[in-house]
Amino acid sequence: MPLTSRHLLGLQGVPKEDILLILDTATTFKEVLDRPIKKVPTLQGKTVVNLFYENSTRTRISFELAEKRLSADALNFSVSTSSVKKGETFKDTIRNIEAMKVDMIVVRHSAAGVPYFLTQISNCNVINAGDGTHEHPTQALLDFYSIREKLGRLQGVRVCIVGDIAHSRVALSNIFGLKAVGAEVSVCGPATMIPGFIEDLGVKVYHRIDDAIMENDVLNVLRIQLERKAREYFPSIREYHNYFGITRERLDRLGKDILILHPGPINRGVELSSEIADGMNQIILQQVTNGVAVRMAVLYLLGTQN
Amino acid sequence: MPLTSRHLLGLQGVPKEDILLILDTATTFKEVLDRPIKKVPTLQGKTVVNLFYENSTRTRISFELAEKRLSADALNFSVSTSSVKKGETFKDTIRNIEAMKVDMIVVRHSAAGVPYFLTQISNCNVINAGDGTHEHPTQALLDFYSIREKLGRLQGVRVCIVGDIAHSRVALSNIFGLKAVGAEVSVCGPATMIPGFIEDLGVKVYHRIDDAIMENDVLNVLRIQLERKAREYFPSIREYHNYFGITRERLDRLGKDILILHPGPINRGVELSSEIADGMNQIILQQVTNGVAVRMAVLYLLGTQN
Amino acid sequence: MPLTSRHLLGLQGVPKEDILLILDTATTFKEVLDRPIKKVPTLQGKTVVNLFYENSTRTRISFELAEKRLSADALNFSVSTSSVKKGETFKDTIRNIEAMKVDMIVVRHSAAGVPYFLTQISNCNVINAGDGTHEHPTQALLDFYSIREKLGRLQGVRVCIVGDIAHSRVALSNIFGLKAVGAEVSVCGPATMIPGFIEDLGVKVYHRIDDAIMENDVLNVLRIQLERKAREYFPSIREYHNYFGITRERLDRLGKDILILHPGPINRGVELSSEIADGMNQIILQQVTNGVAVRMAVLYLLGTQN
Repeated sequence: MPLTSRHLLGLQGVPKEDILLILDTATTFKEVLDRPIKKVPTLQGKTVVNLFYENSTRTRISFELAEKRLSADALNFSVSTSSVKKGETFKDTIRNIEAMKVDMIVVRHSAAGVPYFLTQISNCNVINAGDGTHEHPTQALLDFYSIREKLGRLQGVRVCIVGDIAHSRVALSNIFGLKAVGAEVSVCGPATMIPGFIEDLGVKVYHRIDDAIMENDVLNVLRIQLERKAREYFPSIREYHNYFGITRERLDRLGKDILILHPGPINRGVELSSEIADGMNQIILQQVTNGVAVRMAVLYLLGTQN
Repeated sequence: MPLTSRHLLGLQGVPKEDILLILDTATTFKEVLDRPIKKVPTLQGKTVVNLFYENSTRTRISFELAEKRLSADALNFSVSTSSVKKGETFKDTIRNIEAMKVDMIVVRHSAAGVPYFLTQISNCNVINAGDGTHEHPTQALLDFYSIREKLGRLQGVRVCIVGDIAHSRVALSNIFGLKAVGAEVSVCGPATMIPGFIEDLGVKVYHRIDDAIMENDVLNVLRIQLERKAREYFPSIREYHNYFGITRERLDRLGKDILILHPGPINRGVELSSEIADGMNQIILQQVTNGVAVRMAVLYLLGTQN
Repeated sequence: MPLTSRHLLGLQGVPKEDILLILDTATTFKEVLDRPIKKVPTLQGKTVVNLFYENSTRTRISFELAEKRLSADALNFSVSTSSVKKGETFKDTIRNIEAMKVDMIVVRHSAAGVPYFLTQISNCNVINAGDGTHEHPTQALLDFYSIREKLGRLQGVRVCIVGDIAHSRVALSNIFGLKAVGAEVSVCGPATMIPGFIEDLGVKVYHRIDDAIMENDVLNVLRIQLERKAREYFPSIREYHNYFGITRERLDRLGKDILILHPGPINRGVELSSEIADGMNQIILQQVTNGVAVRMAVLYLLGTQN
């Protein structure tokens, strides 16, 4: 049973069956990652271009590892060395890359919609590795994989996404995908960081983290992007931490056990205390491992479709 | 029948037989590029260093893809991360790279003659990927391949190179190679951009683009390098476009069908109108595809010589 | 017989048997480097991350070539593109890399002790590619390999390390390792560049280069790091060259034949005259070749241990 789309642009509108197929396929690849020889010949002779118009370490390395472990040829293309500087249009750059007989493009870009635009101007399979504040579907898929691995199911699981929802592509992909697989999704954060349209998506909004903790099974705690404009949306980092930071003391006081995810990199002492970041509730490093397996699954399913 | 040289430094003095051997070999590799598995084991265990002292996207990626599809190990070495900063001489850098038992070097450098110098201080096969305003032989070879693919022959074909001839390594490689294979070569551009020696090479000079269009089968339209000093050689971009830009309107007015090549990246609205850049006359993206095949042919022929 | 450690952090405390095992294994790999197909499948399916927090060309390329020739998947991670900028702790970065199921980490860092710290927070095999002014063990091992290859033995060979001993990780690794294999080690340089503790290590100190030449079999001449603070430690480059530079004239005057090593890149006219750098006494390029073989040996011995 193949995926219903040739691309992975986001989780909006993706049917439950596709999401579960990716997760089940990832289970197989996760076993490969525990072997001494972590490599399968599945995509030998296929070329994948990693087209990153925004800086990234973990996502790019995770994709590159997934590609190499499937035996694909991986090519990195970053904006700093590109013909963008020579005044070439984005469309011409893409059509040039495609003309070199590339099979798949993994793209990260600061503008929402760029991955979709790629599908309109090229015949490659396109995977969105994050576009503006729109979607970051493989991050959400690895979150689902990690939740299901830990709790045994996704159906009916109550997940609250905590932090700057308004500027988060991770939040949006999680919301679309979790609803598709039958989980209950809510968000929690300062009012300045919750977009107005969120309740229209059927997502409950918490403004008190204690309520979110008491009424959910999972917290997916987003990174506060201090290097961007996050500081404009709350008075101080200390205040953010006091109101929304997850600490051992808070969990103890509430007496509530809850599973904690975080897409990384962590700001220790901001959204998570160090105790929590290293503690028993979190599965942050399992998420990283699962990310490689999930990306192998996506690359495999898209790359062997035809 | 092997090539007569161990290197590809330029097309000046390269015999017709060598050029045709490369083009015929490229035909074989172009078929590989249309397979699901675009890879052959031909250069397995060979190491190719891509030594780029100038920024480049398309040429570097094209070479890197060609190397990987021949199963060679490709190593990228760019000046920004190099020991150049530590005061090492160029010669010492090269001898160090060679001492690591590298088989081939693909080199781009702003100084004419650097590829030749490499052959004097190393035993590697050297491929010139562009040296100053001297030569860029693989670009010319992919132009020839594309013309032959489209028109069925090179012998007797009339090709006019349009633009900044004085600062173009692409022009010079095209002139040498086209004359070798029996094509007729001319150039067209502002007088400030036509070097004095060009007529000594037996190349006709046009100063009116309409004449060039009427009397040729192919226009190879060069990129005006706006990011460099090109602006010093004509009053304004608009004026350049008015006098030398290829537009639908101009072709329609002349009622002349002509094949249009461009090495990319295109300045839309400068040397080509967008209509032409995307139109029926041009084969710009085929050139890009053929570039990978031609570079595979060159790497293969040089790398399996001994 | 395996190595006694899972890591190569330095040569301090490494037993003679381990050093000789690495050198003997390198002999086998050096033969591979002379074959047309310079590749063995030994580390297929293993992933090695090259984690370079300092700029480096030759060491990084040497490791990358060694990894590729052992058929490992090599991933480059440099600080400029990393999450360091996003405020992630070093420990979190490492734990993330490891969570992607990486087998080995090759690390260079400006802080002494970073490779050791890695072994405390990850299960990967760690290879030190230079940490601050502490150790650079693979450089020392390739020096030993080159000396043994040339002189037939290490036991009893008299080696003097010349230059800025105080800021040299190469010096320290050489001192520890040479003493382990039974060579005699001394140092020579300006008093400002000889650390006080050096004689406590049982290392003889020369302040006159002529004495060092007369009483030794090998000079390992360090690079004066002009791009760093080296200039603070002597009045002028010319004076350094006059007092400690190795020149043909000096060797002729002393009538002493001596083997000359240099880790590169060379400052011609500073620590070595050009005549010496290109002359009969030096084996600088053999060192570079041997470096790949030695690094293949270290990667192989650590990567196939379990």
